[in-house]
Amino acid sequence: MGTTNLDKIFKPRVVAILGASDVEGSVGYAVAANFVRGLFEGKAYLVNNHKAEILGVKAYPTIGAVPETVDLAIIATPAKTVCGVVEECGKAGVKGVVILSAGFKETGPAGKALEDEIIKVAKKFDIRIVGPNCLGIIRPATRLNGTFLSKVPKPGTVAFLSQSGALGSAILDTAIHENVGFSTFVSVGSMIDVDFGDLIDYFGSDPHTRSILMYVEGVTNARRFMSAARHFARTKPIVVVKAGRFRESAKAVASHTGSLSGEDAIYEAAFKRAGVVRVDEIADLFNAAEVLSTQPLPSGPRLAIITNAGGPGVMTTDALLARGGKVAELSPKTMERLNAALPAFWSHGNPIDLIGDAGPERYRAALEACLDDENVDGILILLTVQAMINPLSVAEAIVEVLQSKTYQNKTILASFMGKTRVGEANSYFAGHNIPTYDSPEEGVKTYMTMYQYRRNIELL
Amino acid sequence: MGTTNLDKIFKPRVVAILGASDVEGSVGYAVAANFVRGLFEGKAYLVNNHKAEILGVKAYPTIGAVPETVDLAIIATPAKTVCGVVEECGKAGVKGVVILSAGFKETGPAGKALEDEIIKVAKKFDIRIVGPNCLGIIRPATRLNGTFLSKVPKPGTVAFLSQSGALGSAILDTAIHENVGFSTFVSVGSMIDVDFGDLIDYFGSDPHTRSILMYVEGVTNARRFMSAARHFARTKPIVVVKAGRFRESAKAVASHTGSLSGEDAIYEAAFKRAGVVRVDEIADLFNAAEVLSTQPLPSGPRLAIITNAGGPGVMTTDALLARGGKVAELSPKTMERLNAALPAFWSHGNPIDLIGDAGPERYRAALEACLDDENVDGILILLTVQAMINPLSVAEAIVEVLQSKTYQNKTILASFMGKTRVGEANSYFAGHNIPTYDSPEEGVKTYMTMYQYRRNIELL
Repeated sequence: MGTTNLDKIFKPRVVAILGASDVEGSVGYAVAANFVRGLFEGKAYLVNNHKAEILGVKAYPTIGAVPETVDLAIIATPAKTVCGVVEECGKAGVKGVVILSAGFKETGPAGKALEDEIIKVAKKFDIRIVGPNCLGIIRPATRLNGTFLSKVPKPGTVAFLSQSGALGSAILDTAIHENVGFSTFVSVGSMIDVDFGDLIDYFGSDPHTRSILMYVEGVTNARRFMSAARHFARTKPIVVVKAGRFRESAKAVASHTGSLSGEDAIYEAAFKRAGVVRVDEIADLFNAAEVLSTQPLPSGPRLAIITNAGGPGVMTTDALLARGGKVAELSPKTMERLNAALPAFWSHGNPIDLIGDAGPERYRAALEACLDDENVDGILILLTVQAMINPLSVAEAIVEVLQSKTYQNKTILASFMGKTRVGEANSYFAGHNIPTYDSPEEGVKTYMTMYQYRRNIELL
Repeated sequence: MGTTNLDKIFKPRVVAILGASDVEGSVGYAVAANFVRGLFEGKAYLVNNHKAEILGVKAYPTIGAVPETVDLAIIATPAKTVCGVVEECGKAGVKGVVILSAGFKETGPAGKALEDEIIKVAKKFDIRIVGPNCLGIIRPATRLNGTFLSKVPKPGTVAFLSQSGALGSAILDTAIHENVGFSTFVSVGSMIDVDFGDLIDYFGSDPHTRSILMYVEGVTNARRFMSAARHFARTKPIVVVKAGRFRESAKAVASHTGSLSGEDAIYEAAFKRAGVVRVDEIADLFNAAEVLSTQPLPSGPRLAIITNAGGPGVMTTDALLARGGKVAELSPKTMERLNAALPAFWSHGNPIDLIGDAGPERYRAALEACLDDENVDGILILLTVQAMINPLSVAEAIVEVLQSKTYQNKTILASFMGKTRVGEANSYFAGHNIPTYDSPEEGVKTYMTMYQYRRNIELL
């Protein structure tokens, strides 16, 4: 079915919540509340066959009773009723459906039979379905929150597709905390219709999406997935966590979603050929989202490390070299500028050790010199808490430089270490599009992952 | 010199701060304030050759003027004066010295010459010296804070020796936040006298220390280091980050501390032979500290994974298998108990997926069954935030079970994912000796590192 009618799901003008409820704690309540209390740009109708009013808003007995044509129906009714509800949607001219309800394939053969019924009805009416057994969808830019999550991330350029609702919500929670923006979040659920291939096609062509992140357990249509990925991975980074790398974990996937995760080696090879970046851990996926939403891709492996302490500089160098990166060799001009700006026994090389008592001015000078240095592709800025230095004032100086300087397409990352005394600085960075990492090694890992992606694409 | 007189440094009854100052922002001020305002068990005297009173406390013009014999002198005077000050200490019968002052070997040949002078004087008077160019020492149990850091971790069983003061303070800051305890923190500085070998010997025999963590850039006396490590690594875990793994990063070490980090492969082999655990990243060192200070070492590789969502369970399985761990095969009795306690479509195996709406009761039942299962060596408990579940109530139930049950020496770790909604639960865990991890993969990595240590020791 490709991308037909997906606009009904992702760009709806009129939404209906079927199974809207006033029972606090139910999914139907939480979703309804998100529309009643939220600021969705379009119109939303609540549908409930028992109540005439929910959350102080008129409720309609059926979708057919809603006074205008609905683009997107979000269904949160019990599994057994869903097929009938979808049929009613079809008759009412609805073309986009998200089924949140669980109790299908994942519960056994009877559930699978229910799914098959729904698929038949959907085909009859040309309805596109996301789900079932999913968390729903979020489109921050239009404030469309078709999930039961109460908080949504800010608008951004990353589309995040997750085959695990729980993992998706954990990543969103972290993203909100770190101020990372998304164009879309899709919890794909059982994928009885809309699958990864469709979504890559759709978001590959979406002008508001600049990169696609996926948590994948199993692919329903491998050929479509791969052709879509191959088509778009060269223009938009596609970063994938593919779970079930081993026979035993694949078994866990099967018990969990009822889907087969297939031979891992086949995925591995296919990802590589398509130019898809595969990462191993949940944190990697989040880190990729953060850097993709805020920074240009690294144009090369040469990293400058600015630090106020030697030890972390050395650890960062180790991590960089272990991952195939290069310690940028500072140009003679940069060396000259640093010699003029820094105390006599700075490190005289990269890592640029500003010495423990470095304040905003030394950070500013080092950053400006690195931004101007053609030998530098990216800059990782480290700070360890010292007695006399206010980390926030350093963060402010860094942001000021970046706002005044031409970026020259360099990737800028920061790791201000420790917990209790760098919180303000990290929040300030998050609010000004500088990705931050608890440890410098994480920053290096993210830098190198993004550089590898760029390189793979160039080689293909 | 071995451990001679190290008790004077680490178990002083009387301490003097030389170069105590009332200039806010100076090191001499911060250290003096830590003693004046702190609750150090012993006695502390301030020494300043200009002022008769500092911070409202009497100051003595010289160490010789202090009315009793000082065990430990903490020196924060300018580099050029330090040798003379140490000589005065010697004449006054002081046997333990910590030199915080910088400006020695790390600044060039003139600084090196100053160090050589100090070494001569120290030998003459049998004085032991930690430093110079270091952050100092902390002994939480006696509330001895001989550093300029204003916050100290709680008492515990981990001795942490760091060749980078900045890295040390960043790790301490995180430790305080996560409620990890230490027996001792030593910032070793330039190691003109007391070195890693001495300290391993000392803390290897210290009944309050159960494990030793080290950040190492270069070892001054490799033979002593190795013989000490070999001697103690079998009874107390020794975990090391050795920085400068590559030629280029070794160069950064040299510029930073003036010490040679040597051929990395030699260290690698020696660590292995001695039974020392080598980890690669700063976060690993912290994670090791956390688990060593709170949990028994894993007795085997078989991990049970308790989760309320399938996706994170699969990711954890992947991470476990990738690191050579085993997914514990639940005993028939455990299966029976879980079938009785959990909803019909729980995962029926390990990972134990309690299903998204799992509350404290299901977690409690699964944890109890796993604790009783002889096929299980360790348990990693995962939670993703769900609409209706209060993470804190789950954490409370878990702690309650662990307090009532015989542990049977199982290692228990937790990863409650997300940021904004699991903070309370994570603090509760930290207050009850359950290590927590932002991602399950980090938990698995730590578990397997500790298991590998145990295994290496058994094989030696």
